[in-house]
Amino acid sequence: MLSTMQDGQLSLAHLLRHGTSVHADSEVVTWTGSESRRRSYAEVGTRAARLANALRGLGVTGDQRVGTFMWNNAEHLEAYLAIPAMGAVLHTLNIRLFPEQLVFVANHAADHVVLVDGSLVPLLAKQLPQMSTVRHVVVANGDAGTLEAPDGVQVHSYEELLAAAPDTFEWPELDERSAAAMCYTSGTTGDPKGVVYSHRSIWLHSMQVCMSDGMRLSEADTSLAIVPMFHAMSWGLPYAALMAGASMVMPDRFLQPGPIAEILAAEKPTMAAAVPTIWQGLLQHLEANPQDISHLREVVVGGSAAPPSMMHAFEENYDVPVLHAWGMTETSPLGSVARPPAAAAGDEAWAYRYTQGRFPASVRARLIGDSGEEMPWDGESVGELEVQGPWIAGAYYSGQEGVDPDPEKFHDGWLRTGDVGKITSDGFLTLTDRAKDVIKSGGEWISSVDLENHVMAHPAVAEAAVIGVPDEKWDERPLVAVVLREGGSVTPAELREFLADKVAKWQLPENWTFVDEVPKTSVGKFDKKRLRGAHAEGKLDITHV
Amino acid sequence: MLSTMQDGQLSLAHLLRHGTSVHADSEVVTWTGSESRRRSYAEVGTRAARLANALRGLGVTGDQRVGTFMWNNAEHLEAYLAIPAMGAVLHTLNIRLFPEQLVFVANHAADHVVLVDGSLVPLLAKQLPQMSTVRHVVVANGDAGTLEAPDGVQVHSYEELLAAAPDTFEWPELDERSAAAMCYTSGTTGDPKGVVYSHRSIWLHSMQVCMSDGMRLSEADTSLAIVPMFHAMSWGLPYAALMAGASMVMPDRFLQPGPIAEILAAEKPTMAAAVPTIWQGLLQHLEANPQDISHLREVVVGGSAAPPSMMHAFEENYDVPVLHAWGMTETSPLGSVARPPAAAAGDEAWAYRYTQGRFPASVRARLIGDSGEEMPWDGESVGELEVQGPWIAGAYYSGQEGVDPDPEKFHDGWLRTGDVGKITSDGFLTLTDRAKDVIKSGGEWISSVDLENHVMAHPAVAEAAVIGVPDEKWDERPLVAVVLREGGSVTPAELREFLADKVAKWQLPENWTFVDEVPKTSVGKFDKKRLRGAHAEGKLDITHV
Repeated sequence: MLSTMQDGQLSLAHLLRHGTSVHADSEVVTWTGSESRRRSYAEVGTRAARLANALRGLGVTGDQRVGTFMWNNAEHLEAYLAIPAMGAVLHTLNIRLFPEQLVFVANHAADHVVLVDGSLVPLLAKQLPQMSTVRHVVVANGDAGTLEAPDGVQVHSYEELLAAAPDTFEWPELDERSAAAMCYTSGTTGDPKGVVYSHRSIWLHSMQVCMSDGMRLSEADTSLAIVPMFHAMSWGLPYAALMAGASMVMPDRFLQPGPIAEILAAEKPTMAAAVPTIWQGLLQHLEANPQDISHLREVVVGGSAAPPSMMHAFEENYDVPVLHAWGMTETSPLGSVARPPAAAAGDEAWAYRYTQGRFPASVRARLIGDSGEEMPWDGESVGELEVQGPWIAGAYYSGQEGVDPDPEKFHDGWLRTGDVGKITSDGFLTLTDRAKDVIKSGGEWISSVDLENHVMAHPAVAEAAVIGVPDEKWDERPLVAVVLREGGSVTPAELREFLADKVAKWQLPENWTFVDEVPKTSVGKFDKKRLRGAHAEGKLDITHV
Repeated sequence: MLSTMQDGQLSLAHLLRHGTSVHADSEVVTWTGSESRRRSYAEVGTRAARLANALRGLGVTGDQRVGTFMWNNAEHLEAYLAIPAMGAVLHTLNIRLFPEQLVFVANHAADHVVLVDGSLVPLLAKQLPQMSTVRHVVVANGDAGTLEAPDGVQVHSYEELLAAAPDTFEWPELDERSAAAMCYTSGTTGDPKGVVYSHRSIWLHSMQVCMSDGMRLSEADTSLAIVPMFHAMSWGLPYAALMAGASMVMPDRFLQPGPIAEILAAEKPTMAAAVPTIWQGLLQHLEANPQDISHLREVVVGGSAAPPSMMHAFEENYDVPVLHAWGMTETSPLGSVARPPAAAAGDEAWAYRYTQGRFPASVRARLIGDSGEEMPWDGESVGELEVQGPWIAGAYYSGQEGVDPDPEKFHDGWLRTGDVGKITSDGFLTLTDRAKDVIKSGGEWISSVDLENHVMAHPAVAEAAVIGVPDEKWDERPLVAVVLREGGSVTPAELREFLADKVAKWQLPENWTFVDEVPKTSVGKFDKKRLRGAHAEGKLDITHV
């Protein structure tokens, strides 16, 4: 029996039209270091049409890739809209990739054009000669004259291109499963892997961001997207903002705690999203420079686990609830969100909020145990998290129009997340480790994340990373690398004492080291591979207690 | 270039699994006339599996249709879940259809099984002999023994069937565009027309109900769905509740103002949805029997235009905001929702709230003028509303596996709504009339809905319906049919005076009649066709002022 529903396609051209007409007066606000520049969504719509015409003029056809090498700003939002809506594919280049990775992804995606912010021209210029498919570089927010182009590459001014282009564009009708945008994941091993989002996946993900069990984004919001637009599509906020009609505040390159505090004071956003290190930095800044930030109805934290101490500091000192969320580039990224059941209150609600959260209806999850069996959702059984859903990757881009269902990462149509954890019967996920970071001591698993959170709750500690190190008796034991706060002072024995009533006795670490900083990946996560390397090479000064 | 997103299907089997596991403790509460009976979503899930097994046992295969002839109750919710999830098609039979229409739709849909509430057995029994494809009738909430079945029809007890069936079911994987449920529209002319919803359309619509620019349904809600489950799928609330984990309160057959007030007092729902006549009745009841209903965070009104006076009464007397919404069976039904922009306050916000609302990103709209041209969104130009989107019908079910793109109702892939109105530049729709109810006086349109709202704002008036009647000089002039409140008294001259500062002078009606009630369609809307008929036959006693 045939459904009588219309057969229309979910498409970003519709999103562009909707957001820039019905919500013509909503704004994208870009911080310039001392003040804001403002642009209405109506203007963004006209400029996106000009950009599409300009890109067509540079030879962009079909689903060709257009790279962006940009901060979060109004021009990057225009690229987010124009490129997929015209049928091309937006490739957000991560400016923090190591040089050889950056060259790899531009060539692997076969970017034809790259849009670059003026402030990032020097960073791009060094690698540009090796980007073999790039024919045009378009410089936004800066002087195109500063870029000396390799042979065969033309350099353009973004504003001049737009000024010369017509301000309407005949957006094509597209299949909703066609490619809209791509983002490479930057693991610590091997080449980066490309995830290709479809118009459908982005549309559905945007709806989720606006749902009550998502980020609840609404027309009443002004969203400060600190998480970079080159990092998992800024968690989907730019597209969701156009869908809801929410205004956006963009920090551009001003990501230090001081400028973030200034942006908060100037624009009073109602919600903001960033990784824990950004929020930790802001908290430290606010301790020294108090400021009312209660205009934030919610702060979303993801990318790494949010330390409970940080969540309490926001709520108790600044009256701002922290929403803990889990996701990854391969999940668009919204996976789970830690909104406690309405019936939970007090400590019970907090216990829910510490978790990575609950999966919405569109995301299905399972835990796979050591020997491949599915583990129960009992809040205790631990396994590797696998997920399924309409905005979850089922393969990587292999180049040349193909996909790569890497069996290390995909399993019977499920994404293997590489995260290890447990799920309660009511669907709340607690991650205990990355699969590769699990510490197995005497046959039992010790959660490195759990130990890190407890150590970071100590007032003298700024950061702590825990790795497993070889042990003759127990196979592996935890080693804690501690970064002290400025002026902080504490001994390993004191820290061990501090943990005594928080973790089981056999989990208490004997091995401690103080470091100036925890090595980070290009997206700011703890790089435990480098920490393990430093330990293996005997470069860490270890105290045994 | 291929997207690397998973190719999974949106399917109600996933919705069933999600809602009944992760939200196992949420409840469906059914009113029994004096108290509530409660069932957890976990139990609903088990019983839905039993129901699917039982229906399989009655020979339901493939996408065969299973009719329901039921009130809003827990068993109807089980049918909502089990029937589509097993791959069959849920056909909600409107118990208020005229007998010949009821027979028509059951035969047209070729229902194989009908589930019926015990209290509705007498109503069904009369038409059952003419329902030629029905082989099984299953009686829920009552005694199966009371039904004398025609030859070839077997009668079963719902509870006995469930008790005998296994409590797990292997839900099939289905194409998301396959048929899930169907509902016939009951116009005042011609045979009812079947709308067939797909798994995809129901999934997307459920997301919209939970979105910030939808009904904002969340896990914290207890939803009182007064709008019948046989009327436009109870506005999508049952499926959305399972998606969000919201509990549901079901009024069963107790739809009079007194029982609704009792249900509100007993279950304190946080939101409720119904047509204006239900809410008008409740307001009158509450005037005489005051009761705190401020547990309602919002009351959703649709199906007909909400009179502003009613919206103010709810908000000012009971602290309950009314959300005005527009939709129809063909739109699943969520079309537009009148949430004012956050920047609007006071009278400006009220002006937005009186409208039929703004279309979400997934629903596209246009206005078509008298000569087929597209009208601008300027808040003044009037045309027939046409809509497009993934949960909007593109045809009717023609029987025999076909679809009927009736050119009277569908136009280049758009649904012609039959509603006439205007849209502001920021996307807010104001309906002025049904296309067939438009009054054209001296070449100018007079909105019957607008006049009705103004007359109904008079304290002595309970209801008012306006139709166009022939006029020698002006072609047509408005005739107002007034139903007085109990104890209310007012003359036509006084009503005309009351309107004097509210509408243009040339719109002031000269023709008035007092009636005991406005004739209604089977779904409770003003039946202006019958009113026009009564006028044509000279049955109305008209006063000219």
